[in-house]
Amino acid sequence: MLRRVFARPETLIMKTEIGARNCLYPMPTTLIGATVDGKPNYTTIAHVGIMDHQSISLGMAKMHHTNAGIKEHGTFSVNIPSVELVEKTDYCGLVSGKDTEKSRLFKTFYGKLKTAPMIEECPINMECKLAKTVDFPGHDVFVGEIVSTYCNDGLLKDGVPDISKLEPILFVMYDRSYWTLGKRLAKAWQVGKRQEHKN
Amino acid sequence: MLRRVFARPETLIMKTEIGARNCLYPMPTTLIGATVDGKPNYTTIAHVGIMDHQSISLGMAKMHHTNAGIKEHGTFSVNIPSVELVEKTDYCGLVSGKDTEKSRLFKTFYGKLKTAPMIEECPINMECKLAKTVDFPGHDVFVGEIVSTYCNDGLLKDGVPDISKLEPILFVMYDRSYWTLGKRLAKAWQVGKRQEHKN
Repeated sequence: MLRRVFARPETLIMKTEIGARNCLYPMPTTLIGATVDGKPNYTTIAHVGIMDHQSISLGMAKMHHTNAGIKEHGTFSVNIPSVELVEKTDYCGLVSGKDTEKSRLFKTFYGKLKTAPMIEECPINMECKLAKTVDFPGHDVFVGEIVSTYCNDGLLKDGVPDISKLEPILFVMYDRSYWTLGKRLAKAWQVGKRQEHKN
Repeated sequence: MLRRVFARPETLIMKTEIGARNCLYPMPTTLIGATVDGKPNYTTIAHVGIMDHQSISLGMAKMHHTNAGIKEHGTFSVNIPSVELVEKTDYCGLVSGKDTEKSRLFKTFYGKLKTAPMIEECPINMECKLAKTVDFPGHDVFVGEIVSTYCNDGLLKDGVPDISKLEPILFVMYDRSYWTLGKRLAKAWQVGKRQEHKN
């Protein structure tokens, strides 16, 4: 099934064609909050994205219990768990809100939107209004406009979150594993300036 | 501007409301390839996402030179650079293809789609067909269906990429910096099973 190809015949970098495999990893692992059947519910989603500065997308398989709640109320929350929550975070992806009351795992709070439950234990919480839904065969892609964002005190630096203290959980499909964030490598819109003198 | 709030009046976790700030970080840094004005062009995008298993989204400000090429040909590539390419990767986000021939920085190869140039030096390359465009006020969000994926030999393990060898560049807006991937934390769909006995 795998086919070895030359990237270019005249070079020695060998590449293998591995099918039409999605390799956009790692992705941030999130806990999505919604009101379903009148109760707060949380589910684990790492197929997420940034559309523009105000908008987040969630790629959610249509079987998810949460989808109906997002459609009904037009709101949801995006909560960013830290590594210490990895067990509970994974659990929320293993069991369905149809059978299990997952809100018992956390303390829930609300912000401006009264139907977007948020998780107190997660250091970052974003409440979102449903702005668009993009339909895929097996997935609803919900696009949320961020209404307000909350960050635990002690994790802010100059008014913005300090990523090194947040310790987000990164998801990789290749090995079906969670990973940690590493080290700061370089400044964006800056390290590339060194290239100017090389071209 | 920042407002301190209690998550819940009865607990001691203090949170600060930091406005409607997008906190879905880190995101993978990609180099997007397209044919623009008949030539290969590459631009740096970290506002990306996974919509379903076959689909990737790119949130691209409308001013980008690349957008016209993606619209014209209906194809693009998503290339995942490794940390050793951080300088060139950042450079591709600093300068526009309008003024600078960025394809000189890399060796270009093509796969099945003849208008989706890919970067040989990037360990992962995905060629995509434009499936949908979602319109935002200042951004085109291009949704690509992955047609084929290429991975450098030596970076595969059991037929899938080994993330620890890929060394992707992760982008964080808070500190406008690139970060590395850390360590494997736990198995997904597994570590959460321990919670079953706790509930």
